[in-house]
Amino acid sequence: MAKRLLSKSFGEVVRARRSELELTQELLAERAGVHPTYIGMVERGERNCSLDVASEIAEALDAPLSKLIEEAEARNRKSAGASTKKGRPS
Amino acid sequence: MAKRLLSKSFGEVVRARRSELELTQELLAERAGVHPTYIGMVERGERNCSLDVASEIAEALDAPLSKLIEEAEARNRKSAGASTKKGRPS
Repeated sequence: MAKRLLSKSFGEVVRARRSELELTQELLAERAGVHPTYIGMVERGERNCSLDVASEIAEALDAPLSKLIEEAEARNRKSAGASTKKGRPS
Repeated sequence: MAKRLLSKSFGEVVRARRSELELTQELLAERAGVHPTYIGMVERGERNCSLDVASEIAEALDAPLSKLIEEAEARNRKSAGASTKKGRPS
């Protein structure tokens, strides 16, 4: 079974949370100590970041990493449920 | 302030959970699709693994990654509390 990667959902959660806080990618990057390009890649699921970087990003989003991962897992489960009926989402 | 890295506590949580399940590093590695040496490095906090690898390890430990991260965060908070009084633990 093709499995949706957690990093993909994590990126979506980061983007959603950043929008909620009305932060730009630049400001989030500055807070987390990473390059703005990196944040864009994480949000698009193109970058499977390390636990320690993910933790810095979470802190910059004022959320525990465990909470963001929990949301990402929920998205993955939802996606897995959908793919049972309609195949793997693109 | 010197901050304890999440990857360090995550490694301790992985080791504790693996012992609880009475799994060897070899068996956990096989289940997670990584090299046994890699598991040893993660457990000792020498390896800051990616979200997707951490997720595979969590799955091999029959636990959601969010739960393992939550435990690691709790260990980090405890460690931060201790270091307020006694300096950074080695």
